[in-house]
Amino acid sequence: MIDKKEEIKRICKAVIERIKPKDTERENVKAITNSIITNLNTKALELGITANAISVGSTVRNTWVSGEADIDIFLMFPTDMSEEDLKEKGLTLAKSVSERYEERYASHPYIHAYFYAAGTEHEMDIVPCFAVKEAALLKSAVDRTPFHTEYVVQHISGLEDEVLLLKQLMKCLGIYGSEQRRKGFSGYLCELLILRYSSFVALLANASQWQYGVRIDLEGHGKYRGEEPLIVIDPVDPKRNVAAAVSLYSFCKLIDTAREFLAQPDRKFFMPREGKPMSEAEIRKLVKARGTEFVVVMFDAPDVVEDQLFPQLRKAEASIANLIERNEFRVYRSDVTVEDGKAILVFEFLVWQLPKLKQHMGPPVTSEAHAAKFKSKHSPPYLIENGKYAVEVERKYTDVVSLLEHELNSCSLGKDVSESVETGYEVLKTEEIRGGLGYFFSAYFGVPV
Amino acid sequence: MIDKKEEIKRICKAVIERIKPKDTERENVKAITNSIITNLNTKALELGITANAISVGSTVRNTWVSGEADIDIFLMFPTDMSEEDLKEKGLTLAKSVSERYEERYASHPYIHAYFYAAGTEHEMDIVPCFAVKEAALLKSAVDRTPFHTEYVVQHISGLEDEVLLLKQLMKCLGIYGSEQRRKGFSGYLCELLILRYSSFVALLANASQWQYGVRIDLEGHGKYRGEEPLIVIDPVDPKRNVAAAVSLYSFCKLIDTAREFLAQPDRKFFMPREGKPMSEAEIRKLVKARGTEFVVVMFDAPDVVEDQLFPQLRKAEASIANLIERNEFRVYRSDVTVEDGKAILVFEFLVWQLPKLKQHMGPPVTSEAHAAKFKSKHSPPYLIENGKYAVEVERKYTDVVSLLEHELNSCSLGKDVSESVETGYEVLKTEEIRGGLGYFFSAYFGVPV
Repeated sequence: MIDKKEEIKRICKAVIERIKPKDTERENVKAITNSIITNLNTKALELGITANAISVGSTVRNTWVSGEADIDIFLMFPTDMSEEDLKEKGLTLAKSVSERYEERYASHPYIHAYFYAAGTEHEMDIVPCFAVKEAALLKSAVDRTPFHTEYVVQHISGLEDEVLLLKQLMKCLGIYGSEQRRKGFSGYLCELLILRYSSFVALLANASQWQYGVRIDLEGHGKYRGEEPLIVIDPVDPKRNVAAAVSLYSFCKLIDTAREFLAQPDRKFFMPREGKPMSEAEIRKLVKARGTEFVVVMFDAPDVVEDQLFPQLRKAEASIANLIERNEFRVYRSDVTVEDGKAILVFEFLVWQLPKLKQHMGPPVTSEAHAAKFKSKHSPPYLIENGKYAVEVERKYTDVVSLLEHELNSCSLGKDVSESVETGYEVLKTEEIRGGLGYFFSAYFGVPV
Repeated sequence: MIDKKEEIKRICKAVIERIKPKDTERENVKAITNSIITNLNTKALELGITANAISVGSTVRNTWVSGEADIDIFLMFPTDMSEEDLKEKGLTLAKSVSERYEERYASHPYIHAYFYAAGTEHEMDIVPCFAVKEAALLKSAVDRTPFHTEYVVQHISGLEDEVLLLKQLMKCLGIYGSEQRRKGFSGYLCELLILRYSSFVALLANASQWQYGVRIDLEGHGKYRGEEPLIVIDPVDPKRNVAAAVSLYSFCKLIDTAREFLAQPDRKFFMPREGKPMSEAEIRKLVKARGTEFVVVMFDAPDVVEDQLFPQLRKAEASIANLIERNEFRVYRSDVTVEDGKAILVFEFLVWQLPKLKQHMGPPVTSEAHAAKFKSKHSPPYLIENGKYAVEVERKYTDVVSLLEHELNSCSLGKDVSESVETGYEVLKTEEIRGGLGYFFSAYFGVPV
């Protein structure tokens, strides 16, 4: 056991050495951040805009992984300003200091800007928000962020390395980030987990025992009630579960990996997966060995942000799987992805072809009126099965490709997906699968960590 | 409407003319019956056996269909006699008057004898029973029969033709007879139905409206409670449902036919189905058109009476269908039959082949001890699906024939069927189906009446 503890220590130390930003990186990030903040505040004065620029996020908390600094600058506006004004003045101010930028939109508009300094390009989000008095009084979804930063800055000192280890592990597992595509653990959530358990290893030891509904309440707020697998009450907003976005899968994946790592510690847990895409030939060979059939539904990804797109794709996946099963084919597994502007739904089948014949059940024999109606619609012979009439009819779709080619629009697909599908979609079988799905399939077929 | 009523009358009259025994047949049956009864009573005296032979059944009630007289003679023994004695003395007496006979056994031993008289061979059952005081005090299952005969003889006068029509219809529908193979309407039940509704047409008019649990209680006994579709209290034994053996199918088939006949009266309802057996080529052609696959399980019919065999075959059918569905194949329909000493189970399939791959679900990820056990048994990768571990394993049986060839004995088959299956069985696919199933398949594929 002592050996294992030592081994874990040695691994963690080596990982930290690799992923922790060196002094130069740290100084560069601080320098560029401070210079932009100064510029923003100066410009605000010049333009007569009542706003105060502050730095938030992992670069302030010293919890960013080397080479992956996400610089977040928030423009704090008075709460009595209208949202209209906030948006207009915020974006004007942000643009005024940016050489090269994009306007982006999540639930809220912001500027994603690029700055070149000390031989490196830095990316940065400049986000307007309201300077609310406390997090619970938020007027827009991003107003909580400064409070999060403040809370973490106050408490995290000395635990930054532990946070880095956890973030790196989550990234390698593919469960880092609370966006809809991922449904994993946000950076703030990682920080709170480390604050709760005081170390990366202690967190893993605890996570390996987690049960559904495990509850972490750093400030003893004690109010939140919810059905999520993991409940972490926001220290700055008692009504909010910071882990609300964590899916059942992400929750279980952390539990499983915690046990795996503690039992057999290894550096590979902290190495990004190679993400080697499978070639078309490899995909076909593997599918042949499985004996299943794949069908891919592909259409132009609607022009909405991923956080709006992915819930719609998941909904479409469930709705199409339902259509398929109603037609008596059998789905083995399915998944969705977005690649190169294409939304892609992948279904793997146990049963993808069926006989022409189909039994169509009618009303109970004892219901005279319904029986008459049924007989007027269908030709004899009328079978009687379990007290009900039945006729044998021709199945409309004897293979799943023709079903999907004709009936996809009958599914409940979500507004944007539905609009895109109406402009056209492709249904491909295994042998028609083209490049671009290599990454997807290497993940789908599951390489053990 | 008047036309339809007249049409029905005309049809019924014609049918009666065809199926009602002529005077000669009637006289012959009475003569041979009386002569055997006299012989039996004389022999009883000679042999010192205290027994009294009487005639029961449809020949006494004048409700037999021409050419199908079932002569039933009962030997009434005192109730204080032991079953052992009843059996021994009864069979001795029956054999003493019979030229050619077989010993048969239902729940009760009896003699099936052949007599030649007036140019015709007559078959006859000679059955020993106890002369109980009332039907409810029966000591053996057949003791009620004399009471049934007495009741019908007392009430049926003038309605015999109506009974004949009903019996003939039931025969043509394949729902006449209460034996386990058929689960239809017994002769006595047909007579009681006519007594209740006073005519064949009135019975049909009522049957076309029947709901589950319809209750007929000629003597107002009012005691019986049961879940059967049709309840007809035995006038001579209030605790008994004369229709207990009527299956859901037989019940529904009568309802459906009643409506069909009244809507479009036709003589064909009273014509025995041609029962033309399908040839092997016809079967194969039809199966190909259906696109399904048939698998036939065939073994030596165990040497027990049909009333014991058929419930076991039905049980085996359900148990095997369950095995098949547990292995993820899909049964479309199934049936059982006995032909030429072979017990035959026929399964028609929607899905009879499956990919090699199979997902094997493990314990919830949160159950640490079960998880460890699962992982020690199965190789990675471990998938996580809906909070549970899963591994992909090789399916043991990728086609249903190999499943049945290897696993039939794991099914719960009933004692006699199980013993026979253990001595060997065959599993045949469509193209291997041999002759002998032609009648079965012509019924299975359903010719409209």
